[in-house]
Amino acid sequence: MKVTILGNNSALPTYERHPTSQIVYVHDEPIMLDCGEATQIQMQRYGIRWRNLNHIFISHMHGDHYFGLPGFINSMSLLGRTTPLHLYAPAPLEALIQHIMDVASSVLSYPFHFHALPDGAGTLVDNEQFRVSCFPVEHRITCHGFVITRKTKGRKLLLEKCREYEIPAYYYDKLKKGEDYERKDGFLVKNEWVTELGPKPKRYAYCADTLYTESILPYITGVDTMYHESTYLENDIEKAIARFHSTAKQAALLAVKAQVQQLLLGHFSSKYRELEAFKEEAGSIFRNAIITEEGQTYEI
Amino acid sequence: MKVTILGNNSALPTYERHPTSQIVYVHDEPIMLDCGEATQIQMQRYGIRWRNLNHIFISHMHGDHYFGLPGFINSMSLLGRTTPLHLYAPAPLEALIQHIMDVASSVLSYPFHFHALPDGAGTLVDNEQFRVSCFPVEHRITCHGFVITRKTKGRKLLLEKCREYEIPAYYYDKLKKGEDYERKDGFLVKNEWVTELGPKPKRYAYCADTLYTESILPYITGVDTMYHESTYLENDIEKAIARFHSTAKQAALLAVKAQVQQLLLGHFSSKYRELEAFKEEAGSIFRNAIITEEGQTYEI
Repeated sequence: MKVTILGNNSALPTYERHPTSQIVYVHDEPIMLDCGEATQIQMQRYGIRWRNLNHIFISHMHGDHYFGLPGFINSMSLLGRTTPLHLYAPAPLEALIQHIMDVASSVLSYPFHFHALPDGAGTLVDNEQFRVSCFPVEHRITCHGFVITRKTKGRKLLLEKCREYEIPAYYYDKLKKGEDYERKDGFLVKNEWVTELGPKPKRYAYCADTLYTESILPYITGVDTMYHESTYLENDIEKAIARFHSTAKQAALLAVKAQVQQLLLGHFSSKYRELEAFKEEAGSIFRNAIITEEGQTYEI
Repeated sequence: MKVTILGNNSALPTYERHPTSQIVYVHDEPIMLDCGEATQIQMQRYGIRWRNLNHIFISHMHGDHYFGLPGFINSMSLLGRTTPLHLYAPAPLEALIQHIMDVASSVLSYPFHFHALPDGAGTLVDNEQFRVSCFPVEHRITCHGFVITRKTKGRKLLLEKCREYEIPAYYYDKLKKGEDYERKDGFLVKNEWVTELGPKPKRYAYCADTLYTESILPYITGVDTMYHESTYLENDIEKAIARFHSTAKQAALLAVKAQVQQLLLGHFSSKYRELEAFKEEAGSIFRNAIITEEGQTYEI
């Protein structure tokens, strides 16, 4: 499980930094979190393909988190996408997208499914590969964070051993579920001889845009990696509070309280050309704090 | 009078080419024509300032010609713009922008004036510096071209001569209008001794997106520079017609018929990585055909 950052800046694109968007890979399937202006251009720049991207999540209705969506939706249609696309977003976005399609007399080439986010917390997707749930954060307008859980795919086959014990391929799925295999000659092949522990479940929490708030701890505690916005440094905390944003120090404090393994920082204000101070400020409180860079991929 | 190209590609951004936007400078005042996604990012890249940009014109409601507008409008507000902004666009864009503002509970920091384009041709702006008029082109949805006329500012003062003849500065405006000056001693200073011809009026025609159509000749004939879309090469003319676009050959033919001095080509399909063939195709019919490049500025 990993995440590629497409935009690490706040509302004003600047210093070659772009508004928010991320691609999370779960079992190699890409999931998009927010889609600021020029996201499709950033995807091209970093060679990110959308062919098996089927889920997009939008945190809130500030333009720097979704102004890239209409163009991206259109482009996939122009390129002949046929597989369904699922969008999970604040309810008002459904009518707005329809409005944009209507004025252009556009029809998409693929099924487009809109799912309105609930008022509070809830589960949005729950399939064999992953689960995505949302939780409310504290922003000027309604805003959600997301938790993505990679599910384990069962035990991992030791293929050479399976062949050695002459186990037929049709039985491999049962092996992954932990079952033993009884050969025709009555010999019992123990599961642990031919499999090992599969990758453990992983969780990624995405917290943007929000005031510092401990109300989200029940949702994010114990995740492997937490992304948290850090629009400002602590010496601008009054500005952060007035604009419903957080500082690097606050993000780090929350990472400590949530007992996460790794903290990714982003959504930097355009007032900062250099970002080293964010690393210092967060790092002094939480050791494993990372200043995200666009185009970079981080293991979760 | 000159034009800077911010995006020279058609709908799908590709090969580092962006959707349509141009900045026309008239007497150093910038005017924006169309505003595809990432226009504000392109402006930053090429050091284009918006402080005295007061007029934006949108040709039609296909996203690659206006998806950058909501972000640009917002950014100017975040940066504290206070001077009025005038947007001339198809009528449906007014409600759409309001819709986008409403879902974000946004209020702009500056007066925003929307002017709906007329059904056919008409004059949109007519001030001391320039005139902008629009005319209908032929596209899948209603679409307009624009003609920008730089007005002459009168005759140009020869300051050294003015001083030599002891003409007071308050009289300079009259000199620009061609008047002679009578000194207190009765000596008559002829206008042509202290002025010379000012810059002559210039006209720029912007024709995007459109089928080849001679119906626009009455509006564009004789302009100094014509920008015309050339989405395809002639060997794709069926595709061009099916999608209400033009070929490089057609654009060149129209440049000949319209007796323009210079032809700028753009809106290239993403199917073409290299653009030399456009130059060859158009150049064989109209000598002064230019393949526009992003970030480049062309004298009109």
